Amino acid sequence: MHRLPFLLLNTGICKSNIDRMAQKAILHKLLLRPHFKTHQSAQIAEWFRELGINSCTVSSLKMAEYFANAGWTDITIAFPVYPFEVDALNALAKQISLNVIFSSASNLMKSVNQLNGNIGVFIEVDVGHNRSGVDPENTREIALMVNQIEGNSSLKFKGFLSHAGHTYKATSTDEVLKIHRDSLSKLTKLKAFWKESHPDIIVSYGDTPSCSIADEFWGIDEIRPGNFVFYDVMQSQIGSCSTSNIAVATICPVVDINQSRREAVIHCGAVHLSKDNIKLPNDVTSFGLVCGFDGKVWSKPIDGLYVKSLSQEHGIISFANEFPFKVGDLVAILPIHSCLTVDLMGEIKLNDGSTIQTMRQHTF
Amino acid sequence: MHRLPFLLLNTGICKSNIDRMAQKAILHKLLLRPHFKTHQSAQIAEWFRELGINSCTVSSLKMAEYFANAGWTDITIAFPVYPFEVDALNALAKQISLNVIFSSASNLMKSVNQLNGNIGVFIEVDVGHNRSGVDPENTREIALMVNQIEGNSSLKFKGFLSHAGHTYKATSTDEVLKIHRDSLSKLTKLKAFWKESHPDIIVSYGDTPSCSIADEFWGIDEIRPGNFVFYDVMQSQIGSCSTSNIAVATICPVVDINQSRREAVIHCGAVHLSKDNIKLPNDVTSFGLVCGFDGKVWSKPIDGLYVKSLSQEHGIISFANEFPFKVGDLVAILPIHSCLTVDLMGEIKLNDGSTIQTMRQHTF
Repeated sequence: MHRLPFLLLNTGICKSNIDRMAQKAILHKLLLRPHFKTHQSAQIAEWFRELGINSCTVSSLKMAEYFANAGWTDITIAFPVYPFEVDALNALAKQISLNVIFSSASNLMKSVNQLNGNIGVFIEVDVGHNRSGVDPENTREIALMVNQIEGNSSLKFKGFLSHAGHTYKATSTDEVLKIHRDSLSKLTKLKAFWKESHPDIIVSYGDTPSCSIADEFWGIDEIRPGNFVFYDVMQSQIGSCSTSNIAVATICPVVDINQSRREAVIHCGAVHLSKDNIKLPNDVTSFGLVCGFDGKVWSKPIDGLYVKSLSQEHGIISFANEFPFKVGDLVAILPIHSCLTVDLMGEIKLNDGSTIQTMRQHTF
Repeated sequence: MHRLPFLLLNTGICKSNIDRMAQKAILHKLLLRPHFKTHQSAQIAEWFRELGINSCTVSSLKMAEYFANAGWTDITIAFPVYPFEVDALNALAKQISLNVIFSSASNLMKSVNQLNGNIGVFIEVDVGHNRSGVDPENTREIALMVNQIEGNSSLKFKGFLSHAGHTYKATSTDEVLKIHRDSLSKLTKLKAFWKESHPDIIVSYGDTPSCSIADEFWGIDEIRPGNFVFYDVMQSQIGSCSTSNIAVATICPVVDINQSRREAVIHCGAVHLSKDNIKLPNDVTSFGLVCGFDGKVWSKPIDGLYVKSLSQEHGIISFANEFPFKVGDLVAILPIHSCLTVDLMGEIKLNDGSTIQTMRQHTF
């Protein structure tokens, strides 16, 4: 028995998730450049490579170095360059085919002339997420950025990259599709404008909700979904997946039951699940869904049960009438946001008893 | 220069926080058994030992093993025992003086007869936090638990332990003091009832807000605050400290500035700060306060700036009119909840260039 709590991966579900997205990319003639920030694991990355996927996306320089050391030779860092990282980026570009992004002219001006490796550059455009990126209609700023990139002969202007993260706030698949079509329209217009002078430029796009739900990708060249590898409760609420597609669950013990408050205590807290949460339809906050666990696989989420609060090590499950477990039973918690749960846990157990390490592995 | 972002500790502030609490414990004739879940570090634990503090509290078996290996020989695990941990608890009890807690009769019944090490046992009582523990007025359940503990000759009934975690929801020092006095009253009554038959029993109590703010501790024998070692924005909002007592800050770069949205992008996200947050007086959600950083020390928090949202690696700062920093500057973010921030970062930098490892150290 592993130490509790531990994060269990259902490899069958995970490999189906990967395969489905790979097939969808082939069908729509898209390069799948999966975002590896969700699993952060060289071992799981191999499951992509087995399907012929040799390009990936990461969210930090540190993660790029980790996957470069694991043999990945074509990596895009989808976080804007900043000056303190330039030396390490130049060093990494000697080892692999590296792409970076700039999110505005002022972001770019601080670093563009210090890059001297052979580096591909995307301009990040903001299709409505309002986190970072240039307005795709701001032709003047984009032209300035393209000029600056092309003024540095070691850089190659690759095209435009965007993350429609506002799909994560969507509450229906229709809303995701509306955002998606709006994004495609903006990106297609932008690409058409620049393609004449830069026939090779590409558009890189695609979060997990869009890539899971949409069936049209006109104008797009590559997609970068990440979360789909495991999915989570947030994605099932958006409509990107069903709860049966969620590939990871935290296995933990029922420590106590308080019948009068209709609450159970589990050993599964904020340091295991993360504090990310969703609102349930009745406006109640949930930090996870609760499933049975037979020692091998978890059941469907049990109606009426949810994780209502977390402190550092304690989780509190709310139940309606009777709690279907006893003190000492194991339960499985489906995470609200698997990226943060995996990041916290640092390692993932498989049913064959083996352990997958992530880049944030535990050493104790 | 360390890789960004990194967590910087002001050792002067931290050692003052420790010293102040140690002095308060001496003044009130209390045993200070600090909770080490906030720093999770053998090196910082030594700063307590230098003041003659030789007992500690931890939140998990894993943490108990880590500090036992670091030479701590008197440890209380302030999380209810559950069956899967019993063998490891018995093993650990051979090595150190170990105390554990039971939170109810049903929690206790699952494990009490499997414990065979020489272990001290506290009954956890719930003074109003409503997370775990027996109602202190439930004499029948407590008597049953005492009987069961005493029925196992390897166990020693030590007394009652409580955590008034509802002080974390307090919005004024008056509210903290009201909770504190109410707790003392409940605990004193409970102790008086049991002291006749068990003259050696003690009461263990004391969260960071109570221990920081209160000046009366009648009936209490030991206190277990933890967060005070670093404090954080949540504690300053409660009134446990001022922001000048906060000993840790995340140092990160300004990556981009969007003047039209009055927002700046920093490289400091949910995997660095945690998603814990507070409501500011105007009902706005804040994930951290923003300070200047001169390369050595951080400034006071800057009025009008706060971290408004986090994704995995991005933080978004909201500002009122002009942002007082440029792209490429370093800023310091005061964490909302330092326990979770330290847990995520895994290592802490000092101004002399050295690094303190926590039990969750990074290996990449």
